[in-house]
Amino acid sequence: MQISYSADEIRALVQPKKEQGQTAATIRGIASLDAAQPGDLSFLGNAKYKAQVAATRASLVLLPMDFVGTPTEGQIFFWVDNPSAALARLCKAIEQALWPKPQPGVHPSAQIAPGAQVAASATVGPLCVVEEGAEIGEGVYLQSGVFIGRNAKIGAGSWLMPGAIVATECVLGQRVRLQPGAVIGSDGFGYEFVNGRHEKVPQVGIVILGDDVEIGANTTLDRARFSCTRVGTGTKIDNLVQVGHNVVIGKHCIICAQVGISGSTTLEDYVVLGGQAGLVGHITIGAGSQVGGQAGVPQSLPPKSIVTGNPPLPLGTELRLQLLRQRLPELFKRVSAIETQLGVTK
Amino acid sequence: MQISYSADEIRALVQPKKEQGQTAATIRGIASLDAAQPGDLSFLGNAKYKAQVAATRASLVLLPMDFVGTPTEGQIFFWVDNPSAALARLCKAIEQALWPKPQPGVHPSAQIAPGAQVAASATVGPLCVVEEGAEIGEGVYLQSGVFIGRNAKIGAGSWLMPGAIVATECVLGQRVRLQPGAVIGSDGFGYEFVNGRHEKVPQVGIVILGDDVEIGANTTLDRARFSCTRVGTGTKIDNLVQVGHNVVIGKHCIICAQVGISGSTTLEDYVVLGGQAGLVGHITIGAGSQVGGQAGVPQSLPPKSIVTGNPPLPLGTELRLQLLRQRLPELFKRVSAIETQLGVTK
Amino acid sequence: MQISYSADEIRALVQPKKEQGQTAATIRGIASLDAAQPGDLSFLGNAKYKAQVAATRASLVLLPMDFVGTPTEGQIFFWVDNPSAALARLCKAIEQALWPKPQPGVHPSAQIAPGAQVAASATVGPLCVVEEGAEIGEGVYLQSGVFIGRNAKIGAGSWLMPGAIVATECVLGQRVRLQPGAVIGSDGFGYEFVNGRHEKVPQVGIVILGDDVEIGANTTLDRARFSCTRVGTGTKIDNLVQVGHNVVIGKHCIICAQVGISGSTTLEDYVVLGGQAGLVGHITIGAGSQVGGQAGVPQSLPPKSIVTGNPPLPLGTELRLQLLRQRLPELFKRVSAIETQLGVTK
Repeated sequence: MQISYSADEIRALVQPKKEQGQTAATIRGIASLDAAQPGDLSFLGNAKYKAQVAATRASLVLLPMDFVGTPTEGQIFFWVDNPSAALARLCKAIEQALWPKPQPGVHPSAQIAPGAQVAASATVGPLCVVEEGAEIGEGVYLQSGVFIGRNAKIGAGSWLMPGAIVATECVLGQRVRLQPGAVIGSDGFGYEFVNGRHEKVPQVGIVILGDDVEIGANTTLDRARFSCTRVGTGTKIDNLVQVGHNVVIGKHCIICAQVGISGSTTLEDYVVLGGQAGLVGHITIGAGSQVGGQAGVPQSLPPKSIVTGNPPLPLGTELRLQLLRQRLPELFKRVSAIETQLGVTK
Repeated sequence: MQISYSADEIRALVQPKKEQGQTAATIRGIASLDAAQPGDLSFLGNAKYKAQVAATRASLVLLPMDFVGTPTEGQIFFWVDNPSAALARLCKAIEQALWPKPQPGVHPSAQIAPGAQVAASATVGPLCVVEEGAEIGEGVYLQSGVFIGRNAKIGAGSWLMPGAIVATECVLGQRVRLQPGAVIGSDGFGYEFVNGRHEKVPQVGIVILGDDVEIGANTTLDRARFSCTRVGTGTKIDNLVQVGHNVVIGKHCIICAQVGISGSTTLEDYVVLGGQAGLVGHITIGAGSQVGGQAGVPQSLPPKSIVTGNPPLPLGTELRLQLLRQRLPELFKRVSAIETQLGVTK
Repeated sequence: MQISYSADEIRALVQPKKEQGQTAATIRGIASLDAAQPGDLSFLGNAKYKAQVAATRASLVLLPMDFVGTPTEGQIFFWVDNPSAALARLCKAIEQALWPKPQPGVHPSAQIAPGAQVAASATVGPLCVVEEGAEIGEGVYLQSGVFIGRNAKIGAGSWLMPGAIVATECVLGQRVRLQPGAVIGSDGFGYEFVNGRHEKVPQVGIVILGDDVEIGANTTLDRARFSCTRVGTGTKIDNLVQVGHNVVIGKHCIICAQVGISGSTTLEDYVVLGGQAGLVGHITIGAGSQVGGQAGVPQSLPPKSIVTGNPPLPLGTELRLQLLRQRLPELFKRVSAIETQLGVTK
């Protein structure tokens, strides 16, 4: 990440409402307040770190409007409405330098089956495989070693990173991003127990991802037993998440890493699931619910539930129970003392 | 999933014992009772959804023998012994259309090392790698980008999906199915702590999978430190499962997604592990045991244990304890009230 | 794993301090005491299995100095300071036979972009992709289907197994080992919620791995939002682990399978995390701490903490609480009995 910006260039990008100080440094890196060195840009994104601003060695600091303080020698402060958003704008500019738009075209080592359609503006990188009947939309980028199965459809502007896999017949919306190793359309886990053996139930459905969906590295989404497993527009799924067959995930959900969602469960819109949470199958999580990390969810939750634990309880209740549990030794002693006082024979 | 069946064709496949009604619709999809549209087939697989039959818009419905009801105009009901099994038969027919048997032969882009053996009836798809000494059995399908390490053996009729990896010397039985990204034979996680550093303990064993084993997407099975990590005939393992070195899994087990099994642990036959359960190393789970999702298992379990929680307890006991835990605030109050009544000084 | 050693060859490798008995068998396998057959070598690595030595059928047994016993006919005992370490030495020799050093050079099917640098002593196997500006150090082994992104650097002596992925700009130290399917440098999971949508926060940092780091199969390490995600020298990470953006992991840590570490969390040196443990973001785990399997860690821990559970408590405390929880039904009954005795109206 070799970057190189003058304070003037950053001023143009973040458009501060107020500023103080001066720096001649070229900004070559971004760092947290405590780790920054001269030549770095830093920012106060979380009030928790306010006290670190005075000692930071960063040459340029992005600050919220209510921050009060003065830069040191050779340091410049930019006050903005939202330092995190300002930083995001800067990072967006850096991103374009880091990952320049690839040239359209098909790498000679890619294997495109006869009868597959690749849009003229799409890029198919080295060692990708596109099976027959697949459709690769305008501006799509299959980076390297990507597999697109028979009759699958990849919507315009999508970026599939190295090793991503889209199995037969699955459909991706526009601007979908698959992180490396993501698997879309593995078989659902379904068996019938017959004569002492598990007989495979064929999984003949598909997976459909809406627009602007992002799927994390090595995350797996199973194809439906029939019909489809769905992820709604704008939903973001982190790494190593398991989504079972026939799961329906609404719009604009956030699914953190290592979550497991069992088959046929529904998430309504704007649900947030913390890391490593697990949901049984055939339940519905109401819109806007938030489920804590490692929670185990055995039944449906009404909209706007904010719960954690196993079984999941309202956050405050769960935290209180955690504390009371730690006082169990005391409680046992108190009950014993009462019994002694009352002459109870144990 | 473009399907097209007449009611007559479906009658031939599912052989209903009784029927009522008529439909002229061509069946083009399969859907749950509440989601079905005209032209869809639906089914009552779980009595829980019985009330949805009356309102379903499906053109054809598979029903259990004890269901009482009448089709609407343009709708046909088929009564069968087991609607789920009947649907599975139908899906099997669809599956054959979806994934037609590939032509035998080696794709020109595949890399077969000199000295590897590929059976005449096997299919090796694009960009697969087969290292020296490996043996690919009759009818095996290496779909795309599959890696087979030196001296590994793949049993007849196995299907390895895109990106599956079988490391050096590992052995797969007949009709094994590896979902995309599955890794068979990564190194076990073993180190000796010497002079403040973790020195790698070489992992020179292998993995052996029995016949009819299925391994989920991005699941990882570690090779043994020495000797072998084993999975018995007919066992099915879901996505993102971790199986440590020298683990021995019996026959016909079901391991749900994201389970972790630590090194040298043994599962006897017919064990079922719920999603995200974790087992420590060097224990034995007795035959026919069922362990709940997210359970943490610190020690061996006798055969036919049905447990959940951490530590795992019999299901009824665990559920009762979960309820009593939620009554802790009340219990603390009751004890305090008793103490007050008794004049206990706190 | 076809091995073939005489007792004399093993004596030379493990250099026993004492021995008894004789065997003419060629050692062709290594097995645990109870599973060993004639022709196998076995060992007593854990005092727990001491009673199995008398009945073992192994032809050669490695024993600790304090073991007292006598070999049977055709069996030889070697006493050594540390049977596990002795076995490791033997396995190291076997390992070199199993995975002979590959010949340097670039396989004709590998795709090396113009401007990438591959050291003369490096091996680039079939179907690997090395993007422009990447640097592959001396003696590096990219086994098969490995992806190295633009400007990434792979330190001397590293071994990247099939399907491993190193994204743009990431840096690996010397002798790093990536197990199959490991992903280094997927995007961090960061979004800003703007007008009802999650807008991606560009992730423009990198991942830096120190020397002698090992990363497990299908494990994912996210690139930093800016600056870097770091793993210190000598740290070993097992399979299916998730490491979030900007995480900093110290030296010589052990991270077991399926652990999840949220963004910006720091692990100091010599931390051990048990399988499936989950850590929230922005906390610090003090040096030498040990966190139990499945623990959920919501806040920082001081150095040398030995904790488990959720919230994590000292090991003894947690085990005691687990037992008291199981006695809750009894406690409720005792309190009810007291209330009855006192005439409390419920």
